Amino acid sequence: MEWSATRPGEVEGGLPTRADASLTFIGRIRTPFPTRAECPRRGDQEAGPPCRLEVEEPWRPALRGIAPGDRLEVLYWMHLARRDLLVQAPSNRPAPLGTFALRSPNRPNPIASSVVRVVAVTADAVVVSGLDCVDGTPLVDLKPARG
Amino acid sequence: MEWSATRPGEVEGGLPTRADASLTFIGRIRTPFPTRAECPRRGDQEAGPPCRLEVEEPWRPALRGIAPGDRLEVLYWMHLARRDLLVQAPSNRPAPLGTFALRSPNRPNPIASSVVRVVAVTADAVVVSGLDCVDGTPLVDLKPARG
Repeated sequence: MEWSATRPGEVEGGLPTRADASLTFIGRIRTPFPTRAECPRRGDQEAGPPCRLEVEEPWRPALRGIAPGDRLEVLYWMHLARRDLLVQAPSNRPAPLGTFALRSPNRPNPIASSVVRVVAVTADAVVVSGLDCVDGTPLVDLKPARG
Repeated sequence: MEWSATRPGEVEGGLPTRADASLTFIGRIRTPFPTRAECPRRGDQEAGPPCRLEVEEPWRPALRGIAPGDRLEVLYWMHLARRDLLVQAPSNRPAPLGTFALRSPNRPNPIASSVVRVVAVTADAVVVSGLDCVDGTPLVDLKPARG
């Protein structure tokens, strides 16, 4: 388990206690990045390595119509993130900022959205470029990117 | 409760049964659209009406650093959507398409992402333009839009 230590200037707010809605993971993301330290800072839709969005059996019919070249928005669950940080002090910022003013993985509901380019589609997976997440990340949703 | 009827060509897949992760709603979205029928097809960041992202008390410190003019990505929970549709037949499409090839609200994990423009920030809310969701929609996350 990789866990971020709290830094000077950061504010913890306690973990979310209510379960207002539940997610079902529709699959897993396979990337060449085994740990967070090895993830790139930002995915590259053109030159990034191919990553596999593996979709579990019940949801595979929902892939109909996705084709190579499409731009997809991928939502995934950042399972290694902290959910209790209200103010964060990233090392590349001059002062602490609120969590909602940052794209940090650490947030009350750690859902990431990335835009990717479809390289290939199989019966059970979509191969894409542009992701920067750790191997094994749970997949929440995919949909066409906003035009 | 507004509920979409199943149309010819659509495929139902049963509701998600596993709760793999839970969300805590961080607030509510107030819009001038009381029902889905009254929502615009797409939000307008420049000319759209002001909408309020009301943030509950525990998470208000996380707003620090958000300012008028910022572009935010807003994630919200489409609480009126169906979660069991694998293939859908929108009236404006010639043929049915998989749920993951559509931005329909009906999807296994009904999380929307919209990009909005910040109009004003108060201690407990962010006023934005660009949303198209129904009044009272649960708020899941906000973060700077991708540059």
